[in-house]
Amino acid sequence: MTDLVTFGETMLRLSPPQGTRLETTDAFDVRIGGAESNVAVAGASLDLDSVWLSKLPDSPLGRRVVGELRARGVRTGVAFEDDARLGTYYLEHGGEPRGTNVIYDRADSAVTTVTPEELPLGVLEDATAFHTTGITPALSDRAAETTRAVLERASAAGATTSFDLNYRSKLWSHEEARATLTDLFAHVDALFVAKRDAEAVLDREGEAVEVAHGLATDFGFETVVITRGDRGALALHGDEVFEQPVYEADTLDAIGTGDAFVGGFLSKRCAGGDVDAALEWGAATASLKRTIAGDLAVVTPEEVERVVAEGDGGISR
Amino acid sequence: MTDLVTFGETMLRLSPPQGTRLETTDAFDVRIGGAESNVAVAGASLDLDSVWLSKLPDSPLGRRVVGELRARGVRTGVAFEDDARLGTYYLEHGGEPRGTNVIYDRADSAVTTVTPEELPLGVLEDATAFHTTGITPALSDRAAETTRAVLERASAAGATTSFDLNYRSKLWSHEEARATLTDLFAHVDALFVAKRDAEAVLDREGEAVEVAHGLATDFGFETVVITRGDRGALALHGDEVFEQPVYEADTLDAIGTGDAFVGGFLSKRCAGGDVDAALEWGAATASLKRTIAGDLAVVTPEEVERVVAEGDGGISR
Amino acid sequence: MTDLVTFGETMLRLSPPQGTRLETTDAFDVRIGGAESNVAVAGASLDLDSVWLSKLPDSPLGRRVVGELRARGVRTGVAFEDDARLGTYYLEHGGEPRGTNVIYDRADSAVTTVTPEELPLGVLEDATAFHTTGITPALSDRAAETTRAVLERASAAGATTSFDLNYRSKLWSHEEARATLTDLFAHVDALFVAKRDAEAVLDREGEAVEVAHGLATDFGFETVVITRGDRGALALHGDEVFEQPVYEADTLDAIGTGDAFVGGFLSKRCAGGDVDAALEWGAATASLKRTIAGDLAVVTPEEVERVVAEGDGGISR
Amino acid sequence: MTDLVTFGETMLRLSPPQGTRLETTDAFDVRIGGAESNVAVAGASLDLDSVWLSKLPDSPLGRRVVGELRARGVRTGVAFEDDARLGTYYLEHGGEPRGTNVIYDRADSAVTTVTPEELPLGVLEDATAFHTTGITPALSDRAAETTRAVLERASAAGATTSFDLNYRSKLWSHEEARATLTDLFAHVDALFVAKRDAEAVLDREGEAVEVAHGLATDFGFETVVITRGDRGALALHGDEVFEQPVYEADTLDAIGTGDAFVGGFLSKRCAGGDVDAALEWGAATASLKRTIAGDLAVVTPEEVERVVAEGDGGISR
Amino acid sequence: MTDLVTFGETMLRLSPPQGTRLETTDAFDVRIGGAESNVAVAGASLDLDSVWLSKLPDSPLGRRVVGELRARGVRTGVAFEDDARLGTYYLEHGGEPRGTNVIYDRADSAVTTVTPEELPLGVLEDATAFHTTGITPALSDRAAETTRAVLERASAAGATTSFDLNYRSKLWSHEEARATLTDLFAHVDALFVAKRDAEAVLDREGEAVEVAHGLATDFGFETVVITRGDRGALALHGDEVFEQPVYEADTLDAIGTGDAFVGGFLSKRCAGGDVDAALEWGAATASLKRTIAGDLAVVTPEEVERVVAEGDGGISR
Amino acid sequence: MTDLVTFGETMLRLSPPQGTRLETTDAFDVRIGGAESNVAVAGASLDLDSVWLSKLPDSPLGRRVVGELRARGVRTGVAFEDDARLGTYYLEHGGEPRGTNVIYDRADSAVTTVTPEELPLGVLEDATAFHTTGITPALSDRAAETTRAVLERASAAGATTSFDLNYRSKLWSHEEARATLTDLFAHVDALFVAKRDAEAVLDREGEAVEVAHGLATDFGFETVVITRGDRGALALHGDEVFEQPVYEADTLDAIGTGDAFVGGFLSKRCAGGDVDAALEWGAATASLKRTIAGDLAVVTPEEVERVVAEGDGGISR
Repeated sequence: MTDLVTFGETMLRLSPPQGTRLETTDAFDVRIGGAESNVAVAGASLDLDSVWLSKLPDSPLGRRVVGELRARGVRTGVAFEDDARLGTYYLEHGGEPRGTNVIYDRADSAVTTVTPEELPLGVLEDATAFHTTGITPALSDRAAETTRAVLERASAAGATTSFDLNYRSKLWSHEEARATLTDLFAHVDALFVAKRDAEAVLDREGEAVEVAHGLATDFGFETVVITRGDRGALALHGDEVFEQPVYEADTLDAIGTGDAFVGGFLSKRCAGGDVDAALEWGAATASLKRTIAGDLAVVTPEEVERVVAEGDGGISR
Repeated sequence: MTDLVTFGETMLRLSPPQGTRLETTDAFDVRIGGAESNVAVAGASLDLDSVWLSKLPDSPLGRRVVGELRARGVRTGVAFEDDARLGTYYLEHGGEPRGTNVIYDRADSAVTTVTPEELPLGVLEDATAFHTTGITPALSDRAAETTRAVLERASAAGATTSFDLNYRSKLWSHEEARATLTDLFAHVDALFVAKRDAEAVLDREGEAVEVAHGLATDFGFETVVITRGDRGALALHGDEVFEQPVYEADTLDAIGTGDAFVGGFLSKRCAGGDVDAALEWGAATASLKRTIAGDLAVVTPEEVERVVAEGDGGISR
Repeated sequence: MTDLVTFGETMLRLSPPQGTRLETTDAFDVRIGGAESNVAVAGASLDLDSVWLSKLPDSPLGRRVVGELRARGVRTGVAFEDDARLGTYYLEHGGEPRGTNVIYDRADSAVTTVTPEELPLGVLEDATAFHTTGITPALSDRAAETTRAVLERASAAGATTSFDLNYRSKLWSHEEARATLTDLFAHVDALFVAKRDAEAVLDREGEAVEVAHGLATDFGFETVVITRGDRGALALHGDEVFEQPVYEADTLDAIGTGDAFVGGFLSKRCAGGDVDAALEWGAATASLKRTIAGDLAVVTPEEVERVVAEGDGGISR
Repeated sequence: MTDLVTFGETMLRLSPPQGTRLETTDAFDVRIGGAESNVAVAGASLDLDSVWLSKLPDSPLGRRVVGELRARGVRTGVAFEDDARLGTYYLEHGGEPRGTNVIYDRADSAVTTVTPEELPLGVLEDATAFHTTGITPALSDRAAETTRAVLERASAAGATTSFDLNYRSKLWSHEEARATLTDLFAHVDALFVAKRDAEAVLDREGEAVEVAHGLATDFGFETVVITRGDRGALALHGDEVFEQPVYEADTLDAIGTGDAFVGGFLSKRCAGGDVDAALEWGAATASLKRTIAGDLAVVTPEEVERVVAEGDGGISR
Repeated sequence: MTDLVTFGETMLRLSPPQGTRLETTDAFDVRIGGAESNVAVAGASLDLDSVWLSKLPDSPLGRRVVGELRARGVRTGVAFEDDARLGTYYLEHGGEPRGTNVIYDRADSAVTTVTPEELPLGVLEDATAFHTTGITPALSDRAAETTRAVLERASAAGATTSFDLNYRSKLWSHEEARATLTDLFAHVDALFVAKRDAEAVLDREGEAVEVAHGLATDFGFETVVITRGDRGALALHGDEVFEQPVYEADTLDAIGTGDAFVGGFLSKRCAGGDVDAALEWGAATASLKRTIAGDLAVVTPEEVERVVAEGDGGISR
Repeated sequence: MTDLVTFGETMLRLSPPQGTRLETTDAFDVRIGGAESNVAVAGASLDLDSVWLSKLPDSPLGRRVVGELRARGVRTGVAFEDDARLGTYYLEHGGEPRGTNVIYDRADSAVTTVTPEELPLGVLEDATAFHTTGITPALSDRAAETTRAVLERASAAGATTSFDLNYRSKLWSHEEARATLTDLFAHVDALFVAKRDAEAVLDREGEAVEVAHGLATDFGFETVVITRGDRGALALHGDEVFEQPVYEADTLDAIGTGDAFVGGFLSKRCAGGDVDAALEWGAATASLKRTIAGDLAVVTPEEVERVVAEGDGGISR
């Protein structure tokens, strides 16, 4: 039995030390990151049997992606291709007012040519949940088609499907995203969407609760989770509305926070938890992630439970 | 003439870089730490002639403990034993809500077999002050017996003896600690205790001043210093009560703050200062320690004086 | 179907930078190492489905062992115990004449209390090969008993069992080792032994080929592999004798070379290769390992094949 | 056509890692810094054609100064001398209450013997602006004479001359500074001065605006810019007064902030901007500098414009 | 007056620490490298006024290429393009028998779209020498056309043109290379070619001197330099033949050695030296480069002269 | 009772990572070094009670010198002066043919003003041996006078005095050295001198044994030790001549090898050993030093004994 299957791209993440610029750094921290594998890692850290599906170059770089995900407890179902490239992204952390800068170098990566036939989709047959994001169909037409096919297959196999809209302006326009993504929504049970993306991409207006109702009505989602940055998250599940504030965190690395939220949420849901408990787990996992360098939520269920119970840390000795 | 003698365990301290977890780190910062040697270092930094007594493995690891303490100006009176082990502790710093995690690996370390005969206790004969903590007797029955013997010897030699309760839940229960520690108090002139330890271990209730009075009455302490985290410290000395707020600090590493406080306090007392001045020095040394990586308070008397005088830093050039 | 199962201890490996001493270093490289997991990693790198059995503390340190082995493609069958400790070893690399120094701190580690009942021994039922070493029974009486039980179970299940004598003078005497190990040999099909260990522990004399014949005769081994450092290896398999020189290597880290040899050998044997081809793979994997920091042979089958074919590297671009 | 010429000393900057002390560190970050080259770098980053004039040892250390400045887009006009030394400064960053400590080791550096004849002053002939600071004449009598000669030449050539008072108590007394600096003011068009330096060195009293008016009146400055730390800057230009608050910043390294302010200001002025726009550019460049390790403002015009427009950062992806 | 102009691609070079693999490293050293800029750097280090022509992304990564080359004294004539990518290469150093592994990720980099119109080719008008390599035309059809155009322009302007064949099997086949490159030879005065490339790409046989004569005859080169790895170089210049052994070196990083050879050779030639003196300078520069991490020959004329004079180092103090 | 007293300068040693140049490095390893303190450290490592006399700035840099020497077991007798500077030296390690480059920046360091009155010379009263080198009198006239005074005092107190000629061409000429040094020899019992220095500075010719005899005759030395690099050392003691080859070593850092030799030699002599045993200890300590980064011989008597006995290392586990 598999709890959670995700599908998407994982990139090499290259970041200079704190306070140093891409223009001048002599060293990169080397990590991996990708929305869907980030979710799988958060899920596996929280005891889900998680599988990540994708395509990678048959190279040391492709193997390191597999190795790091396995180290975090994720099983991988990967198509390998000779002479393909691994997408990379450069991440420069900067305090205010400089801000954090991301430079993608992901065009023509291995996953842009992935087909359903290359992937071990049989794993979906006994999966509890399937998750992907709006980044994957933005990578290429082929990736968009494969996203659709995998979503359909997951849905047909009885998995609960979830989708994080995750709009990336460097990959496509609002209009392109809207056309492609809304077309996929028929196969999605649960939508995660930032409020600003709901407005810009899905053309919604009003308070979060109105946006959630509108989306649920228009697309038939069972669950809609609206995230609002520091203002916390709101979930509409059937007729019920739940609100969840953020847990405060000393942020060392904000990248991957949203994925940790989704992973925490899904881990509770897959374990049979209610939506409000899932929101708590999502928010707690996200806050822990903020204290950890890298995209990945290297956390334990006990840590998440402690944050939910107490909301803070301290020295344990 | 020796100003300050301390007795206790020093461990190897292994900590991953900020933002990195024990589970995934590829590197450790290597330092040393132990409550009693931390106090000796703070004392020596503030011009006390300080001696640390203990037992170590006769190995490069044992020698590095001696070397680092000597570097900080502490003289060492150490029994060495072949094939013994050095206690270690793993320290993972985490921002909120993750918190800081300490994993001890100190069982059966060299010091657990220490006897009074192995130690150069003659140094106590002309010592102004002797200090140890509630960690040492928690390490083993043998260590507890030796703690008692050394305290008795120090007291008999005319040194002012001080004791920091320092309860460690990973070493023993409240009940075990209470039985052993209260039995040692007959030889203690000054007690340092966190308010929460006074409550949990010594079964006290009420405001800090009441706790201090109760302890002084019950055990005959000349001085009782109650620490209350961010709320500062309170000292009862004879009939007088002194309160000391904390100096604000940008905390980079909170480990060793309490020991720096004691070291600062004792350095002023050994130099003939009053209890209120000693509290100021303790608080100032503690606040400086928070800005420094590692257990050790690498500070100067001039820096402590400046904090007491101004309470802040700036750029000096 | 499982190709290779190994059983033994994995430790945390802490090593200062090149040229720096344990006594003075401010940093450790953090890795893991243990003879049996090293073999499993070499096997998995060379496409064996490998499983490592052991016992670990239920802590971040225990989880990092599992994570690193998974990253290298090894499945883990681990019993976890609260409050247990992870064995550690300090490794100081030194050029000549200083030499490399290893300090073990492994007493009372989690694996010393391992019982057969705690281990998922069902994995042996369809295993092609089982491997352990003379280190495991040296760790404790309990570990010795469990080693015997696991060897028996593997043998009974039809796996080819192999055993690397791996004498460690810091764990036991020649006499203790001889008594315990020869008692296990009844369940061993293939013995790997350094010539100097055969002499010192097993009381053998003469040329390698005589030693091999004597051991095969006395203990009924199907295969005996004698390693002789720079002089290469000799295998006796049935009546056949094979010799294998070493492939020259620029040695950056010699630790784990012997385990890489065994892993390379077994990977070829499990894949149906002859003993002489297995010796080549063993020697090639060992020579590649020497160029890599850490105990683990992070290599590919293609690299091993190239060394066998050409015996050298160069720049590929 | 050259936009900006500066003249002064650049030193090697040696700083231990955050949280580590000069007394104990095993590593230094190696950078360069000097008020006048910092200004030239900020100018070049903001698209000015900048030239830095100075004297350096003919050594790898001298060449690294030239190399780093060139890397940042600054042209260098340097006299080299065999066997001269490069000034160095040790910089220890400390959080509060420890503060940041600077130790200069700059006595007898190469620049202390610089003469006008050694410098390629022809570059001043078509320069828009010339800038130096009160540090340069403090280095030696020779340096003071050369500063005067270069200022005169710049002024005669028609460049707008600016001067940052930059009092350094470790180099000279208030009285020495006053005597030397006021003597140079005849050739200065624009003065930058911290309010506390105006008070202590130039003997001024009252509000910033009064101080500015007084200085302009007494010395005939066209522009006076008074900086007041967190309270922002005030400029008097002819009869007009402009005020500029600081942009908030997460300060990682405060050294060089004032020079970044001047560089930002001058870059706008050289490009024909008004004083109020120049103040905005100065403040924005300074706030960006605070997020960057090292003296140098490695920024872009786009970043400065964004800060002016929005005043904050975020994640761009 | 410009001494040397080169044209080609510069990439970001990412390499893990010695002994660590791409598959597992947590850190990259970040440098830049490219055959033609490497030659320009060696030239500038040896006092040539050098210019590098190319195309880069208008990004921090593009700017760092310019900055590093400027730091090394090279002037840059660069076309910038938004949203273009910088070619990268991953370099894993391995001792024998593992060897060094290079993974290129350079497809569709900015320079693949470069046109002659984008480049400031006016610099060729007063250039003494122009140099490019067989890598540039292999990057794209457009790059090949531009290479031809620039060569023609250089030749027409009277520069001595040189060309390093530099065959890269990962970019094209022997046949493709032969067709394209021989077509360019009409505009080349001096050819540098490894003997193995002369054989494989240019279909030559026999001793180096025969190969050189054949190439000179067939293509009209004024100078042909054949490099033979450890066996040194041979030059045919007109009717004269010169041989040059290698200077022995402790090789830390072999990448860029060939470019250092060319840079050293050209610097002597541009300064009016004979071919035999140029070979000495080439060999000496190459041997120094081998001791330095990175592609770039950060050397001085004095160091090169010393190697030529003495052939070795020692401690100078 | 003090075994060994030394007097001289200790500098801050700044060195870039292997393969990196002073001109480009972004990091320095920070250590300390000085011939006389190096000897004291080697002595203390080999169980001599060692004292180092000198003058330092009263600053964190001065304190770090004291701290590092104390860590290595050396007692310090130091005069501190406000606002003085610590000598520094830049050390760039380079393989052949680049060689190792040392840049001194030691002019006007604190020790150049040292007077006998500032030093705690009472320690000489019960000292077995006193040692200094030809570097100290080269630092300043004042340092030369003080060297003479300390030598006289040591000699008068009955200590065996030794002197390592240690000619530094960057500090003075052969002639200056000869005049100053020969004048000191009246107070020297044992001279250490490199053969090339004996030739160049002391104007000697012929084989080492002749040089030794000549020096002993001319200056009345009890012992003369001539070192000849790879050819080993020769000692003349009274009428006896001893030769000592070098122990082979994998050299990681050659700096301090000569001082380790002297320290090893003196430690054996102070312990009552013969000159031939002292030569063995000197050579063994020197060979161990070569494997260790930094000037200091962090070794143990057991290691030295093992080298003398076996001459090599290996892996001990």
